[in-house]
Amino acid sequence: MKSYIKEKIDTFRMDNENRARLLINCPDQPGIVAAVSQFLSEHNANIIESNQYSTNPKGGEFFIRIEFEMPNLKEKKDSLEAGFETIKDQFEMEATFKYVDQIKKVAIFVSKEPHCLLELLWEWQSGDLMADISLVISNHETSREIVESLGIPYYYIPANKDIRKEVEQKQIELIKQYDVDFIVLARYMQILTPNFVETFKNRIINIHHSFLPAFIGAKPYERAYNRGVKLIGATSHYVTNDLDEGPIIEQDISRVDHRDNAEAMKKIGQSVERSVLARAVKWQLEDRIIVYGNKTIVF
Amino acid sequence: MKSYIKEKIDTFRMDNENRARLLINCPDQPGIVAAVSQFLSEHNANIIESNQYSTNPKGGEFFIRIEFEMPNLKEKKDSLEAGFETIKDQFEMEATFKYVDQIKKVAIFVSKEPHCLLELLWEWQSGDLMADISLVISNHETSREIVESLGIPYYYIPANKDIRKEVEQKQIELIKQYDVDFIVLARYMQILTPNFVETFKNRIINIHHSFLPAFIGAKPYERAYNRGVKLIGATSHYVTNDLDEGPIIEQDISRVDHRDNAEAMKKIGQSVERSVLARAVKWQLEDRIIVYGNKTIVF
Amino acid sequence: MKSYIKEKIDTFRMDNENRARLLINCPDQPGIVAAVSQFLSEHNANIIESNQYSTNPKGGEFFIRIEFEMPNLKEKKDSLEAGFETIKDQFEMEATFKYVDQIKKVAIFVSKEPHCLLELLWEWQSGDLMADISLVISNHETSREIVESLGIPYYYIPANKDIRKEVEQKQIELIKQYDVDFIVLARYMQILTPNFVETFKNRIINIHHSFLPAFIGAKPYERAYNRGVKLIGATSHYVTNDLDEGPIIEQDISRVDHRDNAEAMKKIGQSVERSVLARAVKWQLEDRIIVYGNKTIVF
Amino acid sequence: MKSYIKEKIDTFRMDNENRARLLINCPDQPGIVAAVSQFLSEHNANIIESNQYSTNPKGGEFFIRIEFEMPNLKEKKDSLEAGFETIKDQFEMEATFKYVDQIKKVAIFVSKEPHCLLELLWEWQSGDLMADISLVISNHETSREIVESLGIPYYYIPANKDIRKEVEQKQIELIKQYDVDFIVLARYMQILTPNFVETFKNRIINIHHSFLPAFIGAKPYERAYNRGVKLIGATSHYVTNDLDEGPIIEQDISRVDHRDNAEAMKKIGQSVERSVLARAVKWQLEDRIIVYGNKTIVF
Repeated sequence: MKSYIKEKIDTFRMDNENRARLLINCPDQPGIVAAVSQFLSEHNANIIESNQYSTNPKGGEFFIRIEFEMPNLKEKKDSLEAGFETIKDQFEMEATFKYVDQIKKVAIFVSKEPHCLLELLWEWQSGDLMADISLVISNHETSREIVESLGIPYYYIPANKDIRKEVEQKQIELIKQYDVDFIVLARYMQILTPNFVETFKNRIINIHHSFLPAFIGAKPYERAYNRGVKLIGATSHYVTNDLDEGPIIEQDISRVDHRDNAEAMKKIGQSVERSVLARAVKWQLEDRIIVYGNKTIVF
Repeated sequence: MKSYIKEKIDTFRMDNENRARLLINCPDQPGIVAAVSQFLSEHNANIIESNQYSTNPKGGEFFIRIEFEMPNLKEKKDSLEAGFETIKDQFEMEATFKYVDQIKKVAIFVSKEPHCLLELLWEWQSGDLMADISLVISNHETSREIVESLGIPYYYIPANKDIRKEVEQKQIELIKQYDVDFIVLARYMQILTPNFVETFKNRIINIHHSFLPAFIGAKPYERAYNRGVKLIGATSHYVTNDLDEGPIIEQDISRVDHRDNAEAMKKIGQSVERSVLARAVKWQLEDRIIVYGNKTIVF
Repeated sequence: MKSYIKEKIDTFRMDNENRARLLINCPDQPGIVAAVSQFLSEHNANIIESNQYSTNPKGGEFFIRIEFEMPNLKEKKDSLEAGFETIKDQFEMEATFKYVDQIKKVAIFVSKEPHCLLELLWEWQSGDLMADISLVISNHETSREIVESLGIPYYYIPANKDIRKEVEQKQIELIKQYDVDFIVLARYMQILTPNFVETFKNRIINIHHSFLPAFIGAKPYERAYNRGVKLIGATSHYVTNDLDEGPIIEQDISRVDHRDNAEAMKKIGQSVERSVLARAVKWQLEDRIIVYGNKTIVF
Repeated sequence: MKSYIKEKIDTFRMDNENRARLLINCPDQPGIVAAVSQFLSEHNANIIESNQYSTNPKGGEFFIRIEFEMPNLKEKKDSLEAGFETIKDQFEMEATFKYVDQIKKVAIFVSKEPHCLLELLWEWQSGDLMADISLVISNHETSREIVESLGIPYYYIPANKDIRKEVEQKQIELIKQYDVDFIVLARYMQILTPNFVETFKNRIINIHHSFLPAFIGAKPYERAYNRGVKLIGATSHYVTNDLDEGPIIEQDISRVDHRDNAEAMKKIGQSVERSVLARAVKWQLEDRIIVYGNKTIVF
């Protein structure tokens, strides 16, 4: 990683060494917020941002994300998490503490078209994506130069459907070697096996070049053109084993008209893809997304 | 029709008695624009607006819409149209002259939910839809009061799939009686038979409450909610015998998030439906839409 | 008020007789959320929605809006509010309980152009604005028919700058007679005196037909046209004694191009005005807006 | 310039060696389109796209942009332009032929913040901006590395208001040396002298980080934050000697809320700035913009 990017990340880590996020989901019932905020208050936490949602206040599922600051957080982590166990048990919570200075490690997969990768790299070197982009894996050599120029390792692993298993084996090894937190498919045009998807459940973010559930699968711009739509879109979602059916994180669209052929739609759409994927990755880095069933709650 | 609306229409007709639109499509080849504009120029036409499009300048299909003013247009109509026959033949054109002071007659079909009907009536009484809304046909009584208060005849024709044929027979009679130019399905929730659709080919405009081709058919908001989409939309299209597959005129979307259940999406969506349908109807009234295959060119 | 609207309101009130909102602002410090949620929990409140914001977690101003349900709320109101006094004092809070079944009384002021008034009436009769529209006051007779047809009293008070004082005297009397909660200026084109504005501080919502702070004052569409802008907008804000300088509640824009003259911009803009004002009024009815200095927090 | 970019440009030039654009403005009168299209037709031109606009069909100003293909254009240029003189004189036209294979030479000026420059470079290396980016001039060294890595000369010319004249002298020399067609101020934060502006009239495109005419001048995000706006924007315009008052080419906005401080608005705004400037530059390269008075017609 280039030194000026490293500096930005180091500064960010220092600025946020006392900052954490608590993510909870549990069956809804009275008293949850009171118990949690009481707990945080007793530990001298200062709440910075708090968002909550309930599928149904009478017996539904409750979700909360609290971002807080706490003096000397580093030394208190263990006692904080241990102390929270009682509340966790009482309300049957799934609860996770996330520490903001633990920068997440990301692997980006890309095929030939570089626009989504480039957007992520651009946001990253501007300091807008606080991630450790640990490696880029591609079945093409196209993006090697730009990736390596930023000090990121680039792995070329040719792929096709006949050697899928071996390819994924190499990819999994690399991801483990770099201890990656999540994977971004930045227009990686190979289908992943159920084994790969299971290995990184809710940890693979894809960008699909259509407004899902319209135009699932291949060649969405051609099909959008043939259907004569007046808007085209892009969708960022977690990957599951049902093609383009995973929990949607973000979507956006752009207007087109009769003058735009499939090629023009593709150009227009690339700009939407870039921003939709960048937003999804940013929210993932900020621990804003909770997957619940086949949907996401984005706080 | 209320007198203040009639006045607006009369004023509009007088202001536009010398204004016409020429809509053409033909195989593309050099010389079309030259021939047409030469012809109009010789007839003292002043071109107000001109839009053209070619699917492919080398042997594709060519489309043009020219709006022009011509002194004493009323007396010249016949000689104008007769004189144009030569050019029409030379370039194998489909060509139509539309006279702006010939206000189009519209029938609106509606079921229970009145929001799209109300938007059209609202735009109409504001003078933004220059139409003769000749009648409203509904399988419910819900909207009778508001429709009749504007001086528009309201026909209640109960409908269900067992009596579809008789219902459509009555509807067709009414449409012929009122000499209607086109039909707007403003959330009319009955399926039309192939016979009805054929009778009014490219003359029935529907609003579908989803971003087509996503969520074709029934209950799109429920299905959008279940899929966890982050955007919902509406689509206005011409009706064909393939459900929700006709040529799309206009689409738009609105942003939703995890807090919006199906009911909330419906509310948000209604606002999109209203504006999408109103735009499509306006373009139809202004002769801006050309249907070509399963697509529209909107000038 | 028409009986079918009254029925909708009555149903809404019954459905929400146990629902309230608590709005708080106070100096930020640790423990606020804990204390408040503890208090609500002890009173068996079920939190439906909660939003908070701090201008600065270290010594800024803290804001929270909590919507909750509480069994037998009606009987508990007094003890609830009395019990909260301790917390209020402890944290130096401004705090208000709002009861959802207490439908707010609204006066709408309008001049000649009816589009914003009509939008509010439309949303209202659809059940989307849960208000008691108690009266409409206008310096023109234009909208009398539509307003009275919905069972709303219409007061015609001619106005000009020479008789401003007498006019406002009559208006104030009417507003007091109807015990109005807040006033909506739905394109009311008279300037209000400082006395009037003071009398209803933060209780007058205006719609200005530009994207403030651009084009403050008269004829914004003409000036937008002359400046050659590519977007026009509308702004809803609370009225203060500085013309068009009050706290902004909501803004939106629409795209225009060189073909749109001032008249076309006005038509396009009216649609933006309608939706921007309707959103602001809805948020006011739902107690979502907190005024802080010259800004709004919209939860 | 890197070889892969050069290749894209060379391919584009070859693909378009027979393509040209004719831009005309003249007093409106009947017969213009007929004469021009007749002329093009006689020269075997195939019209690809044609857009026209009149400020007023009765005696206003008329504008047209025609893009066409013509076999062996290169050899015909002189006779084409000479032949058009008669029509030009007859209708008192300003008329220019632009040849698509004559790639425009561009100088980009930038200060510290690189986001707009980076967007342009990104679009350029993707083949979406068909320009010869001849040089970058900056009063900082910040962007040297990225610019030079793409094979573009980078000139560091320190600037401040005391040495404005000498600085601009150097800049003008460089622009003349590279024979630049137009200049893009991609967040160049120095004021230009009237002399400089006059030298490149309607040939300097600026991006201003606000929705003009709101927040003219310095620190627009701070002022937007202080005013409590709910939308922020960016404006691309030609530079004149009235600060931020030149003809607007394009504008766009993004939504903000009370949680966004000036710093957050700046981040959000940068994304708007990037796309607004990129669109304006693209339209300039495609000869789509005609300046008329203090406005632009964008075809």
